[in-house]
Amino acid sequence: MNIEMIMAAATRLAPVVRRTPLLSSPFLDEIAGRRVFVKAECLQHTGSFKFRGGWAAVSALEEAQRAGGVIAFSSGNHAQGVALAAQRHGIEAVIIMPHDAPELKISNTRAFGADVVLYDRLTEDRDKIGDEMAAARGLTLIKPFNEPQAIAGQGTVGLEIAEQAAFEGITNAEVIVCCGGGGLTSGIALALADKAPSMRVRPCEPMESDDVARSLRSGMIEVNATVANSICDAILTPSAGDITFEIMKNLCGSGLAVSDHDAMRAMAHAFRRLKIVLEPGGAVALAAALFQPEEISGDAVIVVATGGNVDPNVFARSLETLND
Amino acid sequence: MNIEMIMAAATRLAPVVRRTPLLSSPFLDEIAGRRVFVKAECLQHTGSFKFRGGWAAVSALEEAQRAGGVIAFSSGNHAQGVALAAQRHGIEAVIIMPHDAPELKISNTRAFGADVVLYDRLTEDRDKIGDEMAAARGLTLIKPFNEPQAIAGQGTVGLEIAEQAAFEGITNAEVIVCCGGGGLTSGIALALADKAPSMRVRPCEPMESDDVARSLRSGMIEVNATVANSICDAILTPSAGDITFEIMKNLCGSGLAVSDHDAMRAMAHAFRRLKIVLEPGGAVALAAALFQPEEISGDAVIVVATGGNVDPNVFARSLETLND
Repeated sequence: MNIEMIMAAATRLAPVVRRTPLLSSPFLDEIAGRRVFVKAECLQHTGSFKFRGGWAAVSALEEAQRAGGVIAFSSGNHAQGVALAAQRHGIEAVIIMPHDAPELKISNTRAFGADVVLYDRLTEDRDKIGDEMAAARGLTLIKPFNEPQAIAGQGTVGLEIAEQAAFEGITNAEVIVCCGGGGLTSGIALALADKAPSMRVRPCEPMESDDVARSLRSGMIEVNATVANSICDAILTPSAGDITFEIMKNLCGSGLAVSDHDAMRAMAHAFRRLKIVLEPGGAVALAAALFQPEEISGDAVIVVATGGNVDPNVFARSLETLND
Repeated sequence: MNIEMIMAAATRLAPVVRRTPLLSSPFLDEIAGRRVFVKAECLQHTGSFKFRGGWAAVSALEEAQRAGGVIAFSSGNHAQGVALAAQRHGIEAVIIMPHDAPELKISNTRAFGADVVLYDRLTEDRDKIGDEMAAARGLTLIKPFNEPQAIAGQGTVGLEIAEQAAFEGITNAEVIVCCGGGGLTSGIALALADKAPSMRVRPCEPMESDDVARSLRSGMIEVNATVANSICDAILTPSAGDITFEIMKNLCGSGLAVSDHDAMRAMAHAFRRLKIVLEPGGAVALAAALFQPEEISGDAVIVVATGGNVDPNVFARSLETLND
């Protein structure tokens, strides 16, 4: 894993990716007590940054291998990213999703032409299912995060942040990233280490699924005891991968963790102040910036708002927090 | 009014304006039966395109005149645009708003430092109030639409559309614009007549406030009999202005009109497919593209999503239309 792989991914992504805006609002700055910049990856194709890694991985395959089709397992955002990348490459995609994934994510993945297979995330092992189907049908497994090409694709967010922050006159800030398995966090950390080395990347997780924060403290990969009963479905992973953790251990600051309620409150603020739609797992970094300012240092903070694939009833509930 | 004024406004706006993205989704294309591109001005500072006209007008004043402060009347988006432009220029702003404007718009305008004066839009004449206060306090009136500098500022949306559409390979499309008094519509029409002359701009209004559509048919300025009881508060104006109508008459295609219910449905689709927040008056152009495809011609349509300043309960109600 190195910056050249991220730059190469950026070149392959250039004709298809959306360069998402870096948004801000004086009202958010006031709450946070410092300038807050929000990298709105919810506006990316498929509604999350995962399109970047999906495209980077699918486009990196040898043509003959790619023609055999791909398979992926995902709670929904990686699913859609790989499904759209496969559809645009004209190849088959099988996507293994938890049966309790948000309805929107399941139906979108199907609408992007993928063959969706549902499993039970409490009783079944998605890795095992994925490996077996890949072997049986000759499909290439596109892993969600612990995979160099996925990390390279997600790292292109970091290249854009470096450029956009420089345009805003920011060279020195903490960059808070919503973190599941660490693909995005490690990719951004690699990109910024090269392009904006005075930035410090910090992962942010749901409070009861804070394995990366604990791993960064202990220096070894910690595993969540159970899959947390959190609303932040996009980032509920048992643990980081060996590749992503190694990068985060070398490059990242300490982890942050927020409650589901604060994630919902951050969604409501993003609605009111930025006019963007965030899903709970895509709002935890903004929640940390707004509601844990004492955990953050510096005059400016950059948060990555990773996705917006949320069911309408959950979103409507988040808006009720504005009455708190 | 000419293209040079729009180019000059673009130069003054360049350091402060947000270049809003042109969004799309294959799901919206499928509904509309053609490619749909959405210029997301809800992501502009203050949550609507009105910041452009406000800045263009305030920045165009002679310094001595500007120092005396400005006054504006508005249901809320022009209010916020002028208030923020005045605040950033370090001058006083008095804003006259209808007492039934959305709470969010009133509180934001106050938060941008403006002195907000409320009036009753059914019984009082806002123009008269504005003129009297401007004269009494030595403030300069910043008109919302029938004013060359406002048109020039809004026209910068058209410059961006021309560039972004060219990047997408579109040179020939209808451009549907949410229309109140016609400042944005006429500004975009002027910009595109110069930069992308094979585009055709068409205003879109709420069904019971379709004075511009009727005016374009009759060739003279028609007036709405009453202020419509519509949820599209941002674009409920009695009639176009003489300056804006003259431009629209010369350059625009026929007008479109949509129901409040379709505006709400378009908001829900923008939530689900684009991850942006639209207010009802900012969603009518998208509603026409999605639900009146037979009224539109060509392989691609560009809609301007003009604003996102909507109260949470109205937005939550719009999401219920997804169950229709």
